[in-house]
Amino acid sequence: EIAAAAEALLAPGERPLAGKHVLVTAGPTHEPIDPVRYIANRSSGRQGFAIAAAAAKAGARVTLVHGPVAIPLPAGVTAVGVETARAMLAAVEAALPADIAIFSAAVADWRPATEASGKIKKDGSGQVAPLTMTENPDILATIGHRTSGRPGFVVGFAAETDALLDHARAKLARKGADLIVANDVSPGSGIMGGTENEVVLVTDDGADRWPRLGKDEVASRLIDWIAGRITP
Amino acid sequence: EIAAAAEALLAPGERPLAGKHVLVTAGPTHEPIDPVRYIANRSSGRQGFAIAAAAAKAGARVTLVHGPVAIPLPAGVTAVGVETARAMLAAVEAALPADIAIFSAAVADWRPATEASGKIKKDGSGQVAPLTMTENPDILATIGHRTSGRPGFVVGFAAETDALLDHARAKLARKGADLIVANDVSPGSGIMGGTENEVVLVTDDGADRWPRLGKDEVASRLIDWIAGRITP
Repeated sequence: EIAAAAEALLAPGERPLAGKHVLVTAGPTHEPIDPVRYIANRSSGRQGFAIAAAAAKAGARVTLVHGPVAIPLPAGVTAVGVETARAMLAAVEAALPADIAIFSAAVADWRPATEASGKIKKDGSGQVAPLTMTENPDILATIGHRTSGRPGFVVGFAAETDALLDHARAKLARKGADLIVANDVSPGSGIMGGTENEVVLVTDDGADRWPRLGKDEVASRLIDWIAGRITP
Repeated sequence: EIAAAAEALLAPGERPLAGKHVLVTAGPTHEPIDPVRYIANRSSGRQGFAIAAAAAKAGARVTLVHGPVAIPLPAGVTAVGVETARAMLAAVEAALPADIAIFSAAVADWRPATEASGKIKKDGSGQVAPLTMTENPDILATIGHRTSGRPGFVVGFAAETDALLDHARAKLARKGADLIVANDVSPGSGIMGGTENEVVLVTDDGADRWPRLGKDEVASRLIDWIAGRITP
């Protein structure tokens, strides 16, 4: 406490999130079909991991709830690894209360309605039964609409392949978010799995389009931007 | 050529596959649902990568056709990265002729019948349409049953969660393979994604159960075993 206070005195501008708890989700979720197969979203986890690292650097205590990824964990954060959307929601709720929640994970919207206990085999007919799907919980909306224990500032991500701003604006209201970070993940954009990102920040005040930047740079600018909003 | 011949003279037992072309498949395939979602098989690629490395060490020229993995490529092999089962079959056929083909990839048996060009959105009804599936090409059976240009020795893998030997024996005949390497990938086994494997070698002569070994050790023993079968 004393050390933290001293650091804040020494470099107030550099640790704007000292004393804050920041919750970040990152990466994909994997939704099991059977013991060997699953449905997934494309997501390297890079943008979310960079945001968690930037929040820690800004002085926050950081909880990073992440799906299966192949990149190293950032230093100085509490990481919780999960597989499914349901497990991610449970881990997010267990990590509350938080001052800021940033939901950058690419959560699967739906999952197979049933998980087979054994490997599903071909039956030799050449036909395959359709996979019945069910909706996953909406983590952003669940937290954004909480009436008690809602984080003070809730950020959602909108990865879209078309009508980016329309979808982001609709999401802002529907999900109960304070900010939507929208980006175009069309296959030609090179953003999914890449090291750069090109985002638009959408709030009730309007849209702020940032240039194409490294994901680390997007992360530190985003943390600065949020710190500026929540610090009086 | 001269160097290779000299090495063979100097250490004949250590480069039993000198002059041979070994084709190895490894890792999962990813089958797109839309630009951001896919169906996948659980597979780290570790066992297949270890086999490719062991074949290279045994003196073979190695082509490694692999799906999306998060592990480093072995040195001294020609690697071809693919995403889908169809692309894997095309890469395998392009790599022929081969003396030995070892199909260790966890190829998706089926894929979504259509790939949506844009991200599929929730329609607000809470309902999700079932995902219509279609069978993927069977790479092992396609190559195992080739009437011309079939590799001299064809190895398949059978990852099963139940009735391991029954499934492996049935696969041997149905796929036109010379050897099936069967393993139990039940969630409790710790084999999927782990560093060890416990395999049973199934041929027309019977079944040979190996102890639980590191995946590198399984790989080098398997290469020795195959070399002993194909070298007069």
